[in-house]
Amino acid sequence: MSDDQVKPVKPARRARRKPRSPNPLVREKLLAAANELSAERDPNEMRIDEVAERAGVSVGTFYLYFDGKDDLFTSLVVDHTARLRERLTKATSTTPPGEDPGDRRLEAYLDFVDENRKAFLYFLRAGSLETNVGDLNTWAFSQHALDAFPLVEALLGSEAEVSDLEKELLVQAMLSVTQHLAGYWVRNGDRVKREDVKAFIRTVSEAVILHLHSR
Amino acid sequence: MSDDQVKPVKPARRARRKPRSPNPLVREKLLAAANELSAERDPNEMRIDEVAERAGVSVGTFYLYFDGKDDLFTSLVVDHTARLRERLTKATSTTPPGEDPGDRRLEAYLDFVDENRKAFLYFLRAGSLETNVGDLNTWAFSQHALDAFPLVEALLGSEAEVSDLEKELLVQAMLSVTQHLAGYWVRNGDRVKREDVKAFIRTVSEAVILHLHSR
Repeated sequence: MSDDQVKPVKPARRARRKPRSPNPLVREKLLAAANELSAERDPNEMRIDEVAERAGVSVGTFYLYFDGKDDLFTSLVVDHTARLRERLTKATSTTPPGEDPGDRRLEAYLDFVDENRKAFLYFLRAGSLETNVGDLNTWAFSQHALDAFPLVEALLGSEAEVSDLEKELLVQAMLSVTQHLAGYWVRNGDRVKREDVKAFIRTVSEAVILHLHSR
Repeated sequence: MSDDQVKPVKPARRARRKPRSPNPLVREKLLAAANELSAERDPNEMRIDEVAERAGVSVGTFYLYFDGKDDLFTSLVVDHTARLRERLTKATSTTPPGEDPGDRRLEAYLDFVDENRKAFLYFLRAGSLETNVGDLNTWAFSQHALDAFPLVEALLGSEAEVSDLEKELLVQAMLSVTQHLAGYWVRNGDRVKREDVKAFIRTVSEAVILHLHSR
């Protein structure tokens, strides 16, 4: 199933008239406008007419491409998740020899959070929607877990006696710490610096990997 | 400020008529009914008339004590947080000599999650409300962090060279891993067993404490 088929389960208030010949560029423009606006204000406070205006289309056209706010929010989360995964994958694949891909990945994650502070905080706080792929936040988390699993396996190496379930829990634990401490940094930026949070995430990750190795 | 003064910021749909002589027992009965119902179904699907009926009062009486759903939800979170903190504190203080209070605390936490599965998953998923003490989930998290800070300090011991900020981040990281993996257990109970999740949380915690000690 492609990502743009992730849909909220709750029915929209009004039935959507599907465009006869949908233009993917218009959908892209609307999502780009919503992305831009989500950096400026809470996605919760975003109005459909603003999104349409920013994209240069009418409100009627908006409703040809999205069922309403829940559908737009779902698409924003799907879109952010895809863009973040792309950035993280690129950070890993372009790591120069001798440098640590985990470090580059964490930098890329913190860059992304920094660029999307409002949307990130809203995502942490807003809760989730039921969609056809289950709870939306859980789905987004599981996408990142898929990417992180082989990296964690590589870090552990083949000689470590770590069960598949432990690897799975390790991935979940590290993603949870990373997301939570990134949120803690953005919320307490006056006191808590990016480099402190970054160093601490690295400390936790190293400590657990070392510990699992030395059992 | 006492806990029952935590209030949602969003105004209620209808103004509440305050009781002339409020009866704290009625408020307690309504909260107990809501707690009971939250174990049976999603708090999101709870209806005011059900809560009132379960508590043996009229819907009109309900509205003398709560402004509506948001106010009830806020009070439920405040109530759950207080009951959980009490259980955790008791687990620590009743640990027999020679046993590990951290282990007893984690057991008490997992018991509480197990007893309140529906409400716990809803809390993780539902997102938060803006209240007069800020974001409600962040507030609840900070209450637990307050309790956990001295325990983490004791575990680290006075000789460890760990800054106050690192202690703070350690508390946040451990609470985040515990909450997230407890949710992972409840969501994937067919595959992921309580003892596996418990053992893994202990592993992470031990690994990080050891690592910070050995720097």
